[in-house]
Amino acid sequence: MASFREFRGNDGFGGEAWKALCRVRESAPLIQCITNFVSMDIMANTLLAAGASPAMVHAVEEIAEFTALSNALCVNVGTLSAEWVFAMKVAAYRANELNKPWVLDPVGVGDTKFRTESCLELIALRPAVIRGNASDIVAAIRASSALPPKGVDGTIPAIDALEAAKELARVSQSIVAVTGVVDLVTDGKRVLGVSNGVALMQQITATGCAVTALIAAFVAVHPAHSLEAAAFALALFGLAGEIGMEKSNGPGSLRVHLLDALHSLDEVFFQPD
Amino acid sequence: MASFREFRGNDGFGGEAWKALCRVRESAPLIQCITNFVSMDIMANTLLAAGASPAMVHAVEEIAEFTALSNALCVNVGTLSAEWVFAMKVAAYRANELNKPWVLDPVGVGDTKFRTESCLELIALRPAVIRGNASDIVAAIRASSALPPKGVDGTIPAIDALEAAKELARVSQSIVAVTGVVDLVTDGKRVLGVSNGVALMQQITATGCAVTALIAAFVAVHPAHSLEAAAFALALFGLAGEIGMEKSNGPGSLRVHLLDALHSLDEVFFQPD
Amino acid sequence: MASFREFRGNDGFGGEAWKALCRVRESAPLIQCITNFVSMDIMANTLLAAGASPAMVHAVEEIAEFTALSNALCVNVGTLSAEWVFAMKVAAYRANELNKPWVLDPVGVGDTKFRTESCLELIALRPAVIRGNASDIVAAIRASSALPPKGVDGTIPAIDALEAAKELARVSQSIVAVTGVVDLVTDGKRVLGVSNGVALMQQITATGCAVTALIAAFVAVHPAHSLEAAAFALALFGLAGEIGMEKSNGPGSLRVHLLDALHSLDEVFFQPD
Repeated sequence: MASFREFRGNDGFGGEAWKALCRVRESAPLIQCITNFVSMDIMANTLLAAGASPAMVHAVEEIAEFTALSNALCVNVGTLSAEWVFAMKVAAYRANELNKPWVLDPVGVGDTKFRTESCLELIALRPAVIRGNASDIVAAIRASSALPPKGVDGTIPAIDALEAAKELARVSQSIVAVTGVVDLVTDGKRVLGVSNGVALMQQITATGCAVTALIAAFVAVHPAHSLEAAAFALALFGLAGEIGMEKSNGPGSLRVHLLDALHSLDEVFFQPD
Repeated sequence: MASFREFRGNDGFGGEAWKALCRVRESAPLIQCITNFVSMDIMANTLLAAGASPAMVHAVEEIAEFTALSNALCVNVGTLSAEWVFAMKVAAYRANELNKPWVLDPVGVGDTKFRTESCLELIALRPAVIRGNASDIVAAIRASSALPPKGVDGTIPAIDALEAAKELARVSQSIVAVTGVVDLVTDGKRVLGVSNGVALMQQITATGCAVTALIAAFVAVHPAHSLEAAAFALALFGLAGEIGMEKSNGPGSLRVHLLDALHSLDEVFFQPD
Repeated sequence: MASFREFRGNDGFGGEAWKALCRVRESAPLIQCITNFVSMDIMANTLLAAGASPAMVHAVEEIAEFTALSNALCVNVGTLSAEWVFAMKVAAYRANELNKPWVLDPVGVGDTKFRTESCLELIALRPAVIRGNASDIVAAIRASSALPPKGVDGTIPAIDALEAAKELARVSQSIVAVTGVVDLVTDGKRVLGVSNGVALMQQITATGCAVTALIAAFVAVHPAHSLEAAAFALALFGLAGEIGMEKSNGPGSLRVHLLDALHSLDEVFFQPD
């Protein structure tokens, strides 16, 4: 049976992750998402399965009021346009003003000038957490540091991006989560590692986007401990993937069973091996 | 085995609902949807599973012609923006002009000034049916009556929103459906109740949006009986959820099996218990 | 057990289709999609299940750079607006400039003046492949030829649209794929037929859109053989539907198992019956 995996001496992490999930379920934080069109369905369903409450709201006419109602904000630039990036910045600014945490998923930063600049402007608004795969995190720090973006590809293992993540965390003063076979979360000094999950999750579109929204939900209930909150979300989503995998024959069924497993996570999974 | 549940003396309702579903399957009404991005997939799949034909069309350049081709219109303000609200109003106006029924899902009315005003402007265009959860319906009537919106939360049971629904029906001259554990449909005087469905359906994003589109399909084939048509759609969607629940382990699998069940609904389910 | 079906003497087609799939899996072509909101999720998941890499990118600010990164472009007008049609044209123009193949799905061409004109402008930009159902292809050639659009309905069998497809291929200098119970692909002279697939696939929203994106992936790895590449994609998607159907009870489960089957396609399915 799948069970929570401790990593690099995160002792007691399983029990804390379980308590954090219980807090999400009890308080059902309202997570405002300004995200890409591909991810809308799986992101909302992931938040619901974890016990949070999703709201996809992007109209600038209502952001000032709506961000005030929400408990955290999730911004994802996947299908960005000038109009949506403006809304993202307004919402991030408003979240900061109200002292609400927000998280950023800089999808494809480095791929185009427009995307890179939009991401850098968002990073300058100090997200609590930045989550990306290794190539996104490496591209973000290269762009932040005005290093040449050449040579970046999508196959960098998370572990090799650790130095980039630490540097990005120091520059941005955000927690940085770099996800892959192993997920690493850092504040620039401390590093938490998470090794839950199965490779097939990457064959389901927008699982990365969905887990970023889940990070927002966990940060909403643990605003003073964003490093741990991000690691909990990554670990629980990965664990749900492992449990779901037991019943799955491919990416279609894994998507279904992952959501079922996330909804059904029970204390028993969080006992150390 | 799940079976159609009569409620509050709707005698013979099961047989009529079955006949209505047969009419949807035979005539495959074309339902134009101007809806939120989260709901697009499940709304289209729900309409297809019921035998209707979905078309998501929102460009003002083509609404005049396209609304004329369609049999009913479904408007949902979930991820509204100024541009989309304008398209919604143009389409509602055109539907009225052509004497085609349209239904409104005022998601989150009351949450922000922009959303509330947009919904009130749409309600003024006389939808055949307004469908919302209890808090939406209470917020809609408070906004319509210029009552203070304070104190509204999402946990009001449908039954407690009945007076609000009746009042909204009288003010708007629309059928009002308020959904929850029990669904109530009213024209301001008569009330039909539906108690099909399972609680887990609320953990799947956009099931409420999807059933509003299904109401549009049933109203399309029963334009003179919107009250009954709305109740049929709610009951059949709930019944599909009950049947689907028998094979499900969580919200991921329920979404799959609900669609299968809706597609496979058979006369046998409509016999009284 | 489902197996690849040869059609009209396409001898050896199964083995070639298998090799083409292997090439997609090995090279993981990056497919830029500018597509309708309904199809985003299933299109991305279809591309991933086949081994390709999807990217939904529509902002004009980044098209010049992003189209240069991609291996092929998929354009689908389903939920078109003036702004998106402009982006589609910019991307198609850029793809041509860079000698990258692009495919067009002219959803609902003929339904409205705006949609028809948008499609004709896109067709004039010379897509490698145009994919539609019979009514779309008939409507496209009528519009191209300034023939009256009357009398077109959605129930025309693909086989009856063959002459329209050949004519459209000659006029547009594109490969034209007309899909239905039987899929036909033509360059105006040669015709390949594919008879894989199950009827229930049409009850899942955006399966037609998804297979158009799959055609883009196959054309990306076989740019000099678009006719065959389109037929391979149609046959493999249909075969995945047949295999998925064996475990399915309706459109909800077929969507899941189709993706699993596409991901798991194995050489054994490609032996002649």
